[in-house]
Amino acid sequence: MPQFQPVTPAIVELLAEIVGSEHVSTRRADLDQHSRDQGSHPAHSAEVIVWPGEATQVARALALANQHQIPVTAWGAGTSIEANPIPLRGGILVSFARMDKVVELHADDFQVTVQPGIGYKDLNTYLARHGLFFPPDPGANASVGGMLANNAAGIRTVRYGATKDNVLRMQVVLADGRLITVGSRSVKQSAGYDLLHLFVGSEGTLGLITEATLKLTPIAQAIGAAVAPFETVDAAVEAVVALRAGGLEPAALELIDAFSAQMLAANNGLDLLAAPTLFVEFHAANAGALEYSLAAAQEICEEFGAIRFHATADAAERRTLWYARHHAYETMVRTHSGQQFFINDVAVPISAYATLLADIEAERASRGIAAYLLGHAGDGNIHVIFPFGNEDEYRQSQELNGLIVERALALGGTSTGEHGVGASKSRFMPAEHGPALDVMLTLKQALDPRGILNPGKIFP
Amino acid sequence: MPQFQPVTPAIVELLAEIVGSEHVSTRRADLDQHSRDQGSHPAHSAEVIVWPGEATQVARALALANQHQIPVTAWGAGTSIEANPIPLRGGILVSFARMDKVVELHADDFQVTVQPGIGYKDLNTYLARHGLFFPPDPGANASVGGMLANNAAGIRTVRYGATKDNVLRMQVVLADGRLITVGSRSVKQSAGYDLLHLFVGSEGTLGLITEATLKLTPIAQAIGAAVAPFETVDAAVEAVVALRAGGLEPAALELIDAFSAQMLAANNGLDLLAAPTLFVEFHAANAGALEYSLAAAQEICEEFGAIRFHATADAAERRTLWYARHHAYETMVRTHSGQQFFINDVAVPISAYATLLADIEAERASRGIAAYLLGHAGDGNIHVIFPFGNEDEYRQSQELNGLIVERALALGGTSTGEHGVGASKSRFMPAEHGPALDVMLTLKQALDPRGILNPGKIFP
Repeated sequence: MPQFQPVTPAIVELLAEIVGSEHVSTRRADLDQHSRDQGSHPAHSAEVIVWPGEATQVARALALANQHQIPVTAWGAGTSIEANPIPLRGGILVSFARMDKVVELHADDFQVTVQPGIGYKDLNTYLARHGLFFPPDPGANASVGGMLANNAAGIRTVRYGATKDNVLRMQVVLADGRLITVGSRSVKQSAGYDLLHLFVGSEGTLGLITEATLKLTPIAQAIGAAVAPFETVDAAVEAVVALRAGGLEPAALELIDAFSAQMLAANNGLDLLAAPTLFVEFHAANAGALEYSLAAAQEICEEFGAIRFHATADAAERRTLWYARHHAYETMVRTHSGQQFFINDVAVPISAYATLLADIEAERASRGIAAYLLGHAGDGNIHVIFPFGNEDEYRQSQELNGLIVERALALGGTSTGEHGVGASKSRFMPAEHGPALDVMLTLKQALDPRGILNPGKIFP
Repeated sequence: MPQFQPVTPAIVELLAEIVGSEHVSTRRADLDQHSRDQGSHPAHSAEVIVWPGEATQVARALALANQHQIPVTAWGAGTSIEANPIPLRGGILVSFARMDKVVELHADDFQVTVQPGIGYKDLNTYLARHGLFFPPDPGANASVGGMLANNAAGIRTVRYGATKDNVLRMQVVLADGRLITVGSRSVKQSAGYDLLHLFVGSEGTLGLITEATLKLTPIAQAIGAAVAPFETVDAAVEAVVALRAGGLEPAALELIDAFSAQMLAANNGLDLLAAPTLFVEFHAANAGALEYSLAAAQEICEEFGAIRFHATADAAERRTLWYARHHAYETMVRTHSGQQFFINDVAVPISAYATLLADIEAERASRGIAAYLLGHAGDGNIHVIFPFGNEDEYRQSQELNGLIVERALALGGTSTGEHGVGASKSRFMPAEHGPALDVMLTLKQALDPRGILNPGKIFP
């Protein structure tokens, strides 16, 4: 384990010279505000926070930290849940809150270059004026830099891919302060090693992203949605496979379990059955193509035993239809007032999805604990959400989480589909990667030999 | 530069113990057959060729080579053109010709696990029976392993991505013989570093791919095509941007220049105008959606000044319509009998594509040399194809190639869109990557400290 040095008043002074004294803080309130994310991992504070205004300041701050072997942790919006940006070993926290600008829109290229601190929802508000959008949608108003660092995904990944599939080029500051550019604004590039994807998803442990050129998608001319409850999870998952095989390319393909559907109906006055329910969205080039997709989806869902099928091509109706899915988490919070939530995140090949869900349900029932299942079914990704009110319930959720991860790995899946490893999931990495984890560690040591970047993350 | 050891008779003996004596050769005819690819780079022979039958044999052979510091170069089908698989420093050539099996089809997951030696066309013949296909299509019958190693692409990349976008999981043998698995059969994974994409496109310099799980796509229910000549390249490129902005998601979007169109028409008796011509293909979920796409494409092309627009939803007519594009290279070879060809490969953001093409045309005309322009326009990728019959013409093509690469880089593009670096393009890497090339070298040294894997490639 690296022997880190403390942040001395002299270091704070040097940081102030780099970013300006008004953009450095050692105040308790600031440190506390950046000591935990939205997950349940215990808080830990940095020793100093800096808010750089440009990449060269980040580079100088890292060169300084590296020289003195001081930990550096990057902070976007703090919306992660696996402790990804918590400065577990103290040191310097680099907040990108001030680096939140659109650098350049390349409309003809369907690309935009941004600073890492911009919220993806804010970005999409800006892009909408140009008929474009950045598809990954992890929820909250995650920063683009954080999404890149964690390879975040969301409900539209089934069609448009995860964050890693929607980035072309990044500027990255290495541990020793070197500023490099990886990837290309050319959508095709076969020129040496894919450093771009090495830094994406590396959770700030290999470098800090200071600029990114993102791939954009034209906003669809016609958007429609459907909701279909099924008798069983198996039937719903069979419909998922068929919807994808039919070449319909749904833009979202979500599943909630019967327990969640019942809770969401009861607490929002919605017309949902207490049954496993699919939420589908389609993006089409015109109204005719959309009508076709919705009709084909209905045929498929009914073939696989959908109890009913509600569809719409109308924007307002779509919001009503999807209300339950879009407001699921907020409804849970309201329903379980005073409780906290632990959110699990695993993914498997779709052929193993029904098995995984059945196993989760059996374990949950045998332990008699409450849990909601919300899944990005099109990707084989499931979130099991455990409300907890005390230590014992939390411990139970952790135990079951461990079992679910083991099961997902045994089924050829992953311990984390989209939330990243952070500190909470590092213990699963040996089982997931085997000897490939040694290779990851070799790369870490090659690029960050003093171990200053986000220590305590990814590696157990 | 590493001090390599020769392949002694004792080493050949040890290799024979690993793969079986009938799968080792030092015969001149075998060495010659694996001494050059389809490009114009001079031949160079390995000292011995091995044909392993399974991954563990590859692992043992590499451990042996690493111990004795003997170069190892992987060989797929030899269809590359940048000298990527030429064993420039001799040593051991590992041919994957025997490892050409489908390991397992995961039909519900739209995935197939294959050995690296399988040809992608053979794979697609197999997959067609299951209504699925592997979209990247570099031409010839490239091996899947070679496509992965070079991150090959082709005409359908505009819709389905390059090889890197169509792989989920690989088994890789490292320089020291360690066998690791990277990626996951889960389509989503945010569990640590993206080793998968580090090995994809690394051209056998970081490890040898011994198995891969590929992402498949359902074969479209309806396929249509269109051909549209334009007065100018600028107009054609504007139509390309509009076709993509319209959300029509063409499955192929190709451009040939007037000179090529004229040559292809004259030598095949085709009804093509001597004008920059777009070739478009659409994949749709049904006939109605296809009709819509073709009609919308016609409207867009005519808006941007297409001289005419021929479209079809019929399979036989489609082949006729696309004959010129599909048989372009073979027609050139026939037309320039006795000559060889140098094929350039650069890509730029689409907004710079018309500028690049104009610059190429101006340089070509000022030098009075012949060249055909064939482009994957939807990706901003262009191939300039130079016929040459003597040293002087070859030298001229190289000079112009250098200028084109410089221009592409200045326009924010890449020196290689899909052919890889090999030996022929390594001299452009410093200009393309700047200090990021040092990072690539750091990774190379970390994973292959004795430098045995495909020496002389990627790095200048």
